[in-house]
Amino acid sequence: MNTFTRWCALNRTKLHRTISIRQFQTTTRRLLELTSVRYPNVKRGNYGTVQDRDVSEFERLIPGRVLTDSLDGYNTDWLKTCRGASQVVLRPKSTEEVSAILKYCSERKLAVVPQGGNTGLVGGSVPVFDEIVISTQLMNKIISLDEISGTLVCQAGCVLATVEDYLSSYNLTIPVDLGAKGSCHIGGNVATNAGGIRLLRYGSLHGNVLGLETVLASGEVVDCLSTLRKDNTGYDLKQLFVGSEGTLGIITAVSLNCPQKSQAVSVAFLGCKSFQTVLDIFKESRHQLGEVLSAFEFLDSQSMTVAKENLKMNSPIEDFPFYVLIETSGSNGKHDEEKLNQFLENVMSSGLVQDGTVTTEPTKIQNIWSLRERLAEGLLHDGYCYKYDVSLPLPSFYNLVEAMRERLGTMVTRVVGYGHVGDGNLHLNVTSPEYSKEVMAKIEPYLYDWVADKKGSISAEHGLGFKKKDFIYHSKSKSAVVLMKEIKKTFDPNMILNPYKVLPDF
Amino acid sequence: MNTFTRWCALNRTKLHRTISIRQFQTTTRRLLELTSVRYPNVKRGNYGTVQDRDVSEFERLIPGRVLTDSLDGYNTDWLKTCRGASQVVLRPKSTEEVSAILKYCSERKLAVVPQGGNTGLVGGSVPVFDEIVISTQLMNKIISLDEISGTLVCQAGCVLATVEDYLSSYNLTIPVDLGAKGSCHIGGNVATNAGGIRLLRYGSLHGNVLGLETVLASGEVVDCLSTLRKDNTGYDLKQLFVGSEGTLGIITAVSLNCPQKSQAVSVAFLGCKSFQTVLDIFKESRHQLGEVLSAFEFLDSQSMTVAKENLKMNSPIEDFPFYVLIETSGSNGKHDEEKLNQFLENVMSSGLVQDGTVTTEPTKIQNIWSLRERLAEGLLHDGYCYKYDVSLPLPSFYNLVEAMRERLGTMVTRVVGYGHVGDGNLHLNVTSPEYSKEVMAKIEPYLYDWVADKKGSISAEHGLGFKKKDFIYHSKSKSAVVLMKEIKKTFDPNMILNPYKVLPDF
Repeated sequence: MNTFTRWCALNRTKLHRTISIRQFQTTTRRLLELTSVRYPNVKRGNYGTVQDRDVSEFERLIPGRVLTDSLDGYNTDWLKTCRGASQVVLRPKSTEEVSAILKYCSERKLAVVPQGGNTGLVGGSVPVFDEIVISTQLMNKIISLDEISGTLVCQAGCVLATVEDYLSSYNLTIPVDLGAKGSCHIGGNVATNAGGIRLLRYGSLHGNVLGLETVLASGEVVDCLSTLRKDNTGYDLKQLFVGSEGTLGIITAVSLNCPQKSQAVSVAFLGCKSFQTVLDIFKESRHQLGEVLSAFEFLDSQSMTVAKENLKMNSPIEDFPFYVLIETSGSNGKHDEEKLNQFLENVMSSGLVQDGTVTTEPTKIQNIWSLRERLAEGLLHDGYCYKYDVSLPLPSFYNLVEAMRERLGTMVTRVVGYGHVGDGNLHLNVTSPEYSKEVMAKIEPYLYDWVADKKGSISAEHGLGFKKKDFIYHSKSKSAVVLMKEIKKTFDPNMILNPYKVLPDF
Repeated sequence: MNTFTRWCALNRTKLHRTISIRQFQTTTRRLLELTSVRYPNVKRGNYGTVQDRDVSEFERLIPGRVLTDSLDGYNTDWLKTCRGASQVVLRPKSTEEVSAILKYCSERKLAVVPQGGNTGLVGGSVPVFDEIVISTQLMNKIISLDEISGTLVCQAGCVLATVEDYLSSYNLTIPVDLGAKGSCHIGGNVATNAGGIRLLRYGSLHGNVLGLETVLASGEVVDCLSTLRKDNTGYDLKQLFVGSEGTLGIITAVSLNCPQKSQAVSVAFLGCKSFQTVLDIFKESRHQLGEVLSAFEFLDSQSMTVAKENLKMNSPIEDFPFYVLIETSGSNGKHDEEKLNQFLENVMSSGLVQDGTVTTEPTKIQNIWSLRERLAEGLLHDGYCYKYDVSLPLPSFYNLVEAMRERLGTMVTRVVGYGHVGDGNLHLNVTSPEYSKEVMAKIEPYLYDWVADKKGSISAEHGLGFKKKDFIYHSKSKSAVVLMKEIKKTFDPNMILNPYKVLPDF
């Protein structure tokens, strides 16, 4: 039936599309294989080992905030794919404390790993061996807000959803949004250049971060915490820290440009017969919805099966090979609805869409978004998840999923594809009951070669972290990596900051 | 009278708000004092001097494109404040040629200055002594355009307005726009992180440049010319080149994210009784116009006098102490007009605005924009212009103009303030019949101290170039400048790229 269900219009506020991380963690308590065991080729660097006197010194620097027991949650990544063996977690509250800690670690040549909400997907936020964890958990203060310009300054450990709630009361919002918002820290978001669902509308953090305060490995504080939208005085150093995954410095405070909060939000969920149709609808939506288009996501039918079987969720429309989620948000609900309705009429009358639903009601919007955002969680119910996050030119975007499905056949439980079409960003996931070296060997480096061949990126938004660092040459030239290594040596000569991550071995 | 003149609605296309550079240049042919004479404290670096054999080698590398005569236009900046004494201008057509040139210059330790449209305002694009000019004039090819994603790849020497015209036929536009668009090159825009009037809407080039191809001083080509919106594989090196003013490498090609072209544009020009009113209107416009607000500019009554006296232009409304120019652009003209009208009704009924005019008619839009954009040209009619471009927190934004007016009194012809309120970016200009050391001593460093005291930026969008490099510490910390110098040394060990610019002496 060519009908759109229309639900009542309400403002969408305070919806937390939060992955239920804790809930999931408590259900899988089996101790994971150590990273050093699973990856025997990775050798521990020539770093100092934490001694009792080091712990005493840390205790002197940050009394009562040195943890040495029950560190499993800090040692293990959210996906349960990496487990380090750190003996010490430090929880500083201020930039000065981070500086004192790093100065000491630098002198003792103790390796450290900065950790925010530990929601990363490439093993970047947990130790590989015994690196000291420096957690930003207690660095969670809002420092200032300029309501007129929309400039927020806060400590790195502020949880994304908390900041969004805070801004909401000033009619502002945060330009980054992702499934892990209930747990991830803004410092971690910046350090990993988190993308997420608002990138289509507000652009990347490279454009939205106005300033950063960082601490170098030496303990030196680099104050680039500008609150200005424009500042062309010298090289824009802060950009180097955005996406450096804690390997160049520890971000202690962030200044962000925060857009006006949209007064009205609508979401449409459409069924499509082919991936080409998804692309055609995208082109039309960009043209017809223009400035109010705020998200364009897709999922395939295998993703929908995960939602139904593993998460017991229901689809609001009948079965299709592909589904598209379109969000509009703007300052005038009536105008946005008119634009969206006109657009939907056009794509239905041109035969691009056969069935769909549209809503402005917060609970229903949340339900639709959950279908898309809880997929990462749903996939883990299959056992082990081989997780890939690539950018591809749109014409070859979905071919990769089909190629992997054919290649892996019955070796795996399933191969699913979903992601941010608007940003050319595909999340490709393969699941099996447990980690299998054979499956892994069938996926890598085949998948990375495939992406490189299409001039895509082997990591669109997740970063390289520990698990993907050796594949950097699939997306970056040799001369670029040489420069990156030079920069790393300049910023962190003893290489104590998040070793074994981002860059291939020196 | 509280009335708004309403003009007929038409789409605004192909408006070139181009500073008439050539026209102006031909009227001021008096030979300018050499930079080396005006700034006797600046010493020539230990570089090679161009010999006949060098010219022969250049002629071999780029036959017929080595200039050694009539180089005045390449040696002198647009403002007529800096004049170098280069004997050679090279005009490569390809990245390979730039690479070969730099490799040779590097071996011979010959200093070079990259030059785009030579529209910079801080003496960054002209030689200080006898540096070889490498012009991107002939590197003006569009390389590719992906219509669906809106990704353009072009050579660095493409003129901004030409690229905009090209995109226009695909219903796309370029995310940067400035008065010099008819002459400036996209490579120069990126190298100087040009801001301009669209920054409020589309953000800075740090968010919009998807990829860069650059050539290092050694001749090594660094290919980061990605066309992907998302690519988190290693450090985002291209960001370092954005705003580095040609001191880290020469940009040869640019990949840009291009937004949908707005179907409808409206412009309102309002009179305000005080600067506080300007701020109040800005706050309201952000809130009420939301996603369709595309520019918020102001000028003071002294600026209007320049337009009237020096440029023989007329104001569309009666005299006020301040004027505000608001532009909206969006995908639906009817919706945008409704939003703008509602907003104007609100600001009039609340007494914020007494008089104004609003139009959707291209010629009238162009006339209003000209009032704002031709001011730089108009000021030069006074003789010499001391040009400042600062970022300030909005509460102290206009106080600087008043402070300078009081400080300089009758020593100068006038002190005017205008700029991008939406970005906290003030253009402060002082004019006198000719360059005066006394006036200069009265302005600098007082003005920079004033800005630093308010935690502003001493160069919002113009960069530091030659004229402002020694004031970098007014906006950047010592530790940040140390890192910048380290980066410079890593990228350009012989320091041949655009010496005497951006960074203070090593």
